[in-house]
Amino acid sequence: MPSKYSFTNSNQTTQLIPTLIASIFLLSACSQLEDTARLENATTTAQTPQTDATIRSHEGIKNTQITQQIEQVKAASEQSELSYEIVRSLTVEVGPRIAGSKGDRAAVAWAENKFNEMGFDKVYKQPVRVRNWERGFADAKTLSPFEQPLVISALGGSIATPGDGIQAKVLMFEDLESLSKASPGSVEGNIVFLNTRMQRDRAGRFYGKVVPNRVNGAVEAAKLGAKAVIIRSVGTDNSRFAHTGIMRYNDEVAKIPAGAISTADADNLEAMFDKTNEDIILSINMQAKDAGWQTSHNVIGEFTGSEKPEEVVLISAHLDSWDEGTGALDDGAGVGIVMAAAKIIKDTLGQPKRTIRVILYAAEEIGLVGAYQYTRANKDDLKNIIMAAESDFGAGQIYQIDTRFNPDVRNHPTELYDALAGMGIILGNNTTNGGPDVSMLPAQGVPVIALKQDGTYYFDYHHTPNDTLDKVDIKDIQQNQSVWAMVTTYMANTDFDPRPAPVK
Amino acid sequence: MPSKYSFTNSNQTTQLIPTLIASIFLLSACSQLEDTARLENATTTAQTPQTDATIRSHEGIKNTQITQQIEQVKAASEQSELSYEIVRSLTVEVGPRIAGSKGDRAAVAWAENKFNEMGFDKVYKQPVRVRNWERGFADAKTLSPFEQPLVISALGGSIATPGDGIQAKVLMFEDLESLSKASPGSVEGNIVFLNTRMQRDRAGRFYGKVVPNRVNGAVEAAKLGAKAVIIRSVGTDNSRFAHTGIMRYNDEVAKIPAGAISTADADNLEAMFDKTNEDIILSINMQAKDAGWQTSHNVIGEFTGSEKPEEVVLISAHLDSWDEGTGALDDGAGVGIVMAAAKIIKDTLGQPKRTIRVILYAAEEIGLVGAYQYTRANKDDLKNIIMAAESDFGAGQIYQIDTRFNPDVRNHPTELYDALAGMGIILGNNTTNGGPDVSMLPAQGVPVIALKQDGTYYFDYHHTPNDTLDKVDIKDIQQNQSVWAMVTTYMANTDFDPRPAPVK
Repeated sequence: MPSKYSFTNSNQTTQLIPTLIASIFLLSACSQLEDTARLENATTTAQTPQTDATIRSHEGIKNTQITQQIEQVKAASEQSELSYEIVRSLTVEVGPRIAGSKGDRAAVAWAENKFNEMGFDKVYKQPVRVRNWERGFADAKTLSPFEQPLVISALGGSIATPGDGIQAKVLMFEDLESLSKASPGSVEGNIVFLNTRMQRDRAGRFYGKVVPNRVNGAVEAAKLGAKAVIIRSVGTDNSRFAHTGIMRYNDEVAKIPAGAISTADADNLEAMFDKTNEDIILSINMQAKDAGWQTSHNVIGEFTGSEKPEEVVLISAHLDSWDEGTGALDDGAGVGIVMAAAKIIKDTLGQPKRTIRVILYAAEEIGLVGAYQYTRANKDDLKNIIMAAESDFGAGQIYQIDTRFNPDVRNHPTELYDALAGMGIILGNNTTNGGPDVSMLPAQGVPVIALKQDGTYYFDYHHTPNDTLDKVDIKDIQQNQSVWAMVTTYMANTDFDPRPAPVK
Repeated sequence: MPSKYSFTNSNQTTQLIPTLIASIFLLSACSQLEDTARLENATTTAQTPQTDATIRSHEGIKNTQITQQIEQVKAASEQSELSYEIVRSLTVEVGPRIAGSKGDRAAVAWAENKFNEMGFDKVYKQPVRVRNWERGFADAKTLSPFEQPLVISALGGSIATPGDGIQAKVLMFEDLESLSKASPGSVEGNIVFLNTRMQRDRAGRFYGKVVPNRVNGAVEAAKLGAKAVIIRSVGTDNSRFAHTGIMRYNDEVAKIPAGAISTADADNLEAMFDKTNEDIILSINMQAKDAGWQTSHNVIGEFTGSEKPEEVVLISAHLDSWDEGTGALDDGAGVGIVMAAAKIIKDTLGQPKRTIRVILYAAEEIGLVGAYQYTRANKDDLKNIIMAAESDFGAGQIYQIDTRFNPDVRNHPTELYDALAGMGIILGNNTTNGGPDVSMLPAQGVPVIALKQDGTYYFDYHHTPNDTLDKVDIKDIQQNQSVWAMVTTYMANTDFDPRPAPVK
């Protein structure tokens, strides 16, 4: 049924122009997409999930064989710590791997080697051009009336301060909206502090509400003449880890340095405003730099389909991480989950009927760069993707499956939904984007799913130095591994075909 | 009854010799005392607490007035957030205050001002000579076979590495005992990694078991020819904060740099040993320095006794902190608790009968320096101290009162014990040392108490950058404030006299 699908050409929005300015703009645009995708995911999960047991009970006779296969891979997964061991291997042997860095190159080599070790029958790389950004030194302190160091991290893509830093008065704003109401005269020459708090939430719904400070803060502050912007970290922890993440500039507005201070330091700075009516003078010194174009890679491993090799079940995660943690939760967990799920299926049931393609995308953090490259390079093949999905929300347990399936068949996979219901996983909406790196696919008719994870604690560690292996719970990641193996088994070993994904 | 007391001269052990070598040795000796005191506290609380309800029921008629006074200060305290506000003021307006630093001088000024603001009728400072140590830059990374940065903090008092750092093979040992069994030939020229895990415990009992790595690791590793020593942080968190703390050298053994890596980094380094049989090469660069003699101060505030001004109830905390956090738990909480307790008594009941002396000791962290100075300078006055106590274990709730009272009268304060029992606080042993800065007093006949706090999470933050105000729970610190106010009321407003403290 390929003729039914509409595959738009995405070249226009993702074309790579090899200049610094263009690249930063591109990353910025992509980062918005990333954030939009996350926000949309968050928003849609806030809806009341559809409980369609009634619908499913009318589907008629179930496929006993697939039910058995699902149970077999579930049982095998529950005896396996493979996903955890993969995260352990990646975080210990590679660690930090920001796009285009030495660590990133080590990660690509690690991934290719790991796919081969695990017996994937087709292993290949797809080059992706990325801009490498290096964090460098960062330091902040209040100079008066109270003298204290603050923990700061440069936001990803930020320019550096002058070598001797920036010393200026700090102005505190609740959020971008209150900043927008300030008069330029009052902001001119000062440092803007955006102090929005993020709420803890299972679905991470407040990320989308707070992250505009990080993404757009520099542009909005610069419009009013600020010298620099600092934000309260986009995070739910009480700690002194600053949360980095991508920010963007706008070529029509002056570029100013942008950093995040830890929530504890934001509390402290806020409290200083309570304690004094004097100007609070802050010094910031950040020596980040753009380190030029580099080649990274999407790394892909496949178990080729035995009956319909051209039909593809695409499961994915991203291989890059930010540079301060070891990327255990973001996205080592996803890497471990999808690699392990495919391997467990192969070991338990043999070659799948359809091809299982595991993609470890390059450069997600700086703007879904590898995913856009994949989509562009494989545009003629997208029609063959039966379903795409990404695991990129840490290792918290899955509680819901959202889909973006042809509505006519959306309720057909009763054996799968029943098996998931047996694990307490409910069927959610049919409007998901599937996750950052597959979020551009539904618009091209590719069906996606999102296996929604408990993110209650995810934003305690997200984009901090504290994203390390000890935050991954073996039982939790094992549950993810089981669910991904079950879903992938169903998609790869039945004739179920949810194409095309509905356009919103 | 002063003639009954034996006051030994402590000059011999606390004499200050103004040379670097002597000072480091002195700090080392003191730090052992600190650690010994903590260990002893921890050990004694492990004993089954004495439940002497029966004994108390035979004490006869109770003093109705003191019971009422205790209830009055308790009620007043439960309406007051003063202790929290004091911690907030100290952490926001001063922050880090390692002994002898600019922050320490700001803290002394803050304390003197705060005592005056609060209406203490006698406020004075006592000079204390301290060695100032500056942390400087610290950096560690594995170079091969896996290349990763590790979070490291220099241990307090450590010498620097050479300017270009130390690069050497790492040898991992479970603890000092296993290190002691290594042959010098195997250790010579390498970096020793002491990897002992600390268990979580309400009373913090495992601190004393693990802290020898920190205090003695450099000496023991240097004896075998090591170039440097790193330890798994003495802490119970899973995080990337390294825990600093005092270490000591021995003049007969070569001095080598000593640092702590975070528990997450210790996990990672340990895992590298699982992943490879190759040598793991580590690079460490730490640029700590001794910054010479400085004058700090014990800061003292009193409410002078209306009936027996010469009799003193001494409640205390330490004003200094380590340099990376804002010292909210260690020991901002103690500062807030004892200052607030005294103030609430004065505001509720008027001038106490005996003098309430609140001491904020200098330079506890580097070896109880201010406390020894106080003891030495006030040796002729120690006999007038009815009871001494220190709050220095964060802001966790109090669950037990330990004492070191004349056993003949130990069970007399029935009104106090009953009031505490009403809050779920049990009477513990009679063998406490009272807390680090008063631990030298019982040997001189001065009675002490220890109000044992829930330290379940204390060692998650202890001596890290993450020791900040957000870790102080208002309700918990308020409970401490109430208990200290109640105990101090009893000691200051009755004739109860537990002198002399029994020598062990």
